[in-house]
Amino acid sequence: MPLLVVGSVALDSIETPDDSRENVLGGSAVHFSYAASFFSPVKLVGVVGEDWPAEHTDLLNGRGIDTSGLQVVDGGQTFRWSGRYEPNMNDRETLEVHLNVFETFDPVLPEPYKRSEFLFLANGSPIVQMKVLDQVTGPRLAVADTMDLWINIQRDELLKLLQRIDGLMINDAEAKLLTGENNLVAAGRQIREMGPKFVVIKKGEHGAMFFSQYETYVMPAYPTSTVIDPTGAGDSFGGGLLGYLAEQGNFEPQTLKKAMAYGVVTASFNVEDFSLDRMRQITRDDIDRRLDEYRKMLTF
Amino acid sequence: MPLLVVGSVALDSIETPDDSRENVLGGSAVHFSYAASFFSPVKLVGVVGEDWPAEHTDLLNGRGIDTSGLQVVDGGQTFRWSGRYEPNMNDRETLEVHLNVFETFDPVLPEPYKRSEFLFLANGSPIVQMKVLDQVTGPRLAVADTMDLWINIQRDELLKLLQRIDGLMINDAEAKLLTGENNLVAAGRQIREMGPKFVVIKKGEHGAMFFSQYETYVMPAYPTSTVIDPTGAGDSFGGGLLGYLAEQGNFEPQTLKKAMAYGVVTASFNVEDFSLDRMRQITRDDIDRRLDEYRKMLTF
Repeated sequence: MPLLVVGSVALDSIETPDDSRENVLGGSAVHFSYAASFFSPVKLVGVVGEDWPAEHTDLLNGRGIDTSGLQVVDGGQTFRWSGRYEPNMNDRETLEVHLNVFETFDPVLPEPYKRSEFLFLANGSPIVQMKVLDQVTGPRLAVADTMDLWINIQRDELLKLLQRIDGLMINDAEAKLLTGENNLVAAGRQIREMGPKFVVIKKGEHGAMFFSQYETYVMPAYPTSTVIDPTGAGDSFGGGLLGYLAEQGNFEPQTLKKAMAYGVVTASFNVEDFSLDRMRQITRDDIDRRLDEYRKMLTF
Repeated sequence: MPLLVVGSVALDSIETPDDSRENVLGGSAVHFSYAASFFSPVKLVGVVGEDWPAEHTDLLNGRGIDTSGLQVVDGGQTFRWSGRYEPNMNDRETLEVHLNVFETFDPVLPEPYKRSEFLFLANGSPIVQMKVLDQVTGPRLAVADTMDLWINIQRDELLKLLQRIDGLMINDAEAKLLTGENNLVAAGRQIREMGPKFVVIKKGEHGAMFFSQYETYVMPAYPTSTVIDPTGAGDSFGGGLLGYLAEQGNFEPQTLKKAMAYGVVTASFNVEDFSLDRMRQITRDDIDRRLDEYRKMLTF
């Protein structure tokens, strides 16, 4: 099943304790799409400026990602983000944000996209996320991501969005912020009661938690000593997860759990180099082999 | 197989965001012993003062723990620790430490204890830990715990100890301190090269990692929303782990992995109330039932 993703496309400048990169391909929707493309056809809706290198579009198309919904604004500049990672490689500081063309991003879906059955609303304003949802005719599965900014400044709109989506992805600090709960298990259950059928709390290097009406479980991150750049880890986790669901065409509990595992494993490749550099080297077979290793690790 | 544990026996005063307790039963060797007693016979070596309530000894004996090695010092006071937990219930501040009789603890093993095949050296000075090791005739499995204090002030002695033990348990911050490594996978592997056949890094609410020559894996904590008091979680984790190994009488890779899972599950009960209050209510069946749930959570 094709998977529609709407969100940010960016040029990132990243400093880690050991290395740095300037203006490399990034953005939530990009990391998500690339990861998901190993599992199902992906349609990407986003916006870039005239500074956007054509080679990035080629790279995405090379993985079969449909970029006909990627709008190029003449005279505009692409969204730019720069950040610096702490020595622990889990915490980071945002150095600069230039929203540029993303500031007025008002996604208009191409006609055929409106019948998408699987939809991912990457991190963005809940107002824009709802506008996208309004354009899609009854998706079978709509999942959204969010961040602290929207919890702080568009809380009411976010709460409305939660009533309309099937799944929410959120990180640990944001889950605590949204609920005022310090215990993540309690926070996850509380968010589920705000509307979504399932909630995934992303814990960075500590993995991810899943909550539905029937189940609560945790999956650890795949243990790798090669953590070069964690940027996009959460989005590639989401891409692996939703990509697998779209591939399977269902979201039964066992499919969801295997999708969580695929998310963990896909993200573990993403952090092994800057931007999509590691992801460009791998195949679905590499992901499946690591999934087998991961399953063995958790079998006792 | 009987399991010998040597370490601190304490009276703890604990403040959490919601509640507090004064002078309750605690100490590394106590939490460890009680948890291990669900799996195998335990012999406890420690020291207390004349303020030690006899009911605590009764409680330990009630679970079949042999306390003939628990020395009572006339005119002395029992080791006391007090601490306050942060709202996240993972970080804590030590408010007061009175080592009292534990300051000059010089464990002398009763004769029959010297032939113990399974030995746990709970957190303590590596000098004292080595003195214990010197008294035991070729244990089949010797595992130690340590803490930041000893890494800082008795590093050389700790490094010598690492050459003589089979396994080390250490928490995440201490593993980083010992190695200077920020990546826990790299840190765990580096510590293993310092001597022990296996290393377990305890990550609190995020579970634990295992490292041997053959394997690296992570197990998440059992997700519970009932976290009343995390004190002793690491020690009850160790008790479940070593208790199961002693019960099985071997430490094959698959036994070790199941032991890790038992450690996780046993610790998840310990945090559900102050001191040993929750542990007193459970049976081995409760632990086994939760182990089954935990296994299901990790099966995809």
